[in-house]
Amino acid sequence: GHMIVLGWQEGASQQLLSMLSGERASDEALPVLVSRSLAQNPMSDQIDFVRAERLADPEALERAGISGARGVVVRGENDDETLAAALVSATLNSSIHVVAYFEYQRTAEIAERQAARIETITSLSPELLVRAARDPGSSQVAKLLLSASTADTAFSMLLPEGRAPIRYGDALIGLRRSCNATLVGVGRAGKVDLNCPADDPISSGDTIYYISDNRLDAGAIDWSAMEGAGR
Amino acid sequence: GHMIVLGWQEGASQQLLSMLSGERASDEALPVLVSRSLAQNPMSDQIDFVRAERLADPEALERAGISGARGVVVRGENDDETLAAALVSATLNSSIHVVAYFEYQRTAEIAERQAARIETITSLSPELLVRAARDPGSSQVAKLLLSASTADTAFSMLLPEGRAPIRYGDALIGLRRSCNATLVGVGRAGKVDLNCPADDPISSGDTIYYISDNRLDAGAIDWSAMEGAGR
Ligand SMILES: [Ca+2]
Ligand SMILES: [Ca+2]
Repeated sequence: GHMIVLGWQEGASQQLLSMLSGERASDEALPVLVSRSLAQNPMSDQIDFVRAERLADPEALERAGISGARGVVVRGENDDETLAAALVSATLNSSIHVVAYFEYQRTAEIAERQAARIETITSLSPELLVRAARDPGSSQVAKLLLSASTADTAFSMLLPEGRAPIRYGDALIGLRRSCNATLVGVGRAGKVDLNCPADDPISSGDTIYYISDNRLDAGAIDWSAMEGAGR
Repeated sequence: GHMIVLGWQEGASQQLLSMLSGERASDEALPVLVSRSLAQNPMSDQIDFVRAERLADPEALERAGISGARGVVVRGENDDETLAAALVSATLNSSIHVVAYFEYQRTAEIAERQAARIETITSLSPELLVRAARDPGSSQVAKLLLSASTADTAFSMLLPEGRAPIRYGDALIGLRRSCNATLVGVGRAGKVDLNCPADDPISSGDTIYYISDNRLDAGAIDWSAMEGAGR
């Protein structure tokens, strides 16, 4: 599946679309931009383009291929537009991952209440300023973790089905030894916990977050060989 | 030393000042806000206040106690104001840590060229949207790491003087065992590297970044006991 981007802001959207395009899997089609402010494709070498009257227009979303897409990134002109477009996207494809940027925390909370599947993003600038003020260099840490174009990115991995649970402590040591990656935490049922206790079990269907220079292939990892590594 | 905040934006600054105030060390005075748009202290129970004609006014900064401060956080009304205030702050106190928020990457680069001590922050929203689109839950990871009011925060620690270097691999295992913390990387001479090779030495004067529920006390850690832990 491909990625769909709803909404266009000069500068920020360009950067976002370039990054999405640069991180495509080998069999992944170009990202599709849906915009109502642009007359034509602003980056025709890197993306596909659909013009819409409204971002929340189901027909435009169908033309953008939402039924076969892997994810939607929404950033409208304001929170109302973003909320409407995010909710319509989630309705049109029940398995798609929807990420939406909101200016106000209150609108983000409403979006999450309406559809728990929507991952909401608000500006983390106040948090980033405080962290950098207390812990110099934190802005570099955050930038590295978020940017896949640099080394040291925080990727995620869904644990494959049909495997025995593995202790968090064993996975931490095992992933360092076998994959040169640092395990940072686990996501389960929409909740993320980092730096987990060593005896916590990680099971099929859990998502792990790890720092690595490249995305790892869950299927190529010998999980059973890690057993006891962290004792 | 205390913290100084230059510039006031309704909402964002309130959040920032509350967080700074909440993270004070036991012997640390209240943060001081310097603003030219406010007539009086907007949060008199949590901060001190200095009114200024210009954010970059040396006299106002002296009144805010810049010579004894530990850090300055700058977010002006625009990048010009931020740049001026950040540079004047760095000039008035040669050991202070200056963190400044810029709207444009280009202005941030100019600030860094003028004074390498200035830690510049720009919006990480495009990076955050892409990361969350590719790796669901990443927004929660970033939020946890940046917020000291939640568990799982990314803190930093300066390695004390007069100790023998320790292997990165030993420190990773040792900090998990003795302090329940996950080592994520090392900062040295203004450069940050995460997920370092196991044999990399960490020395006095290096900064380490780690995930923990609480800030650790570098002096209370038995570094020598970690030797060989990661072999
Ligand atoms: Ca935890
Ligand atoms: Ca690295």
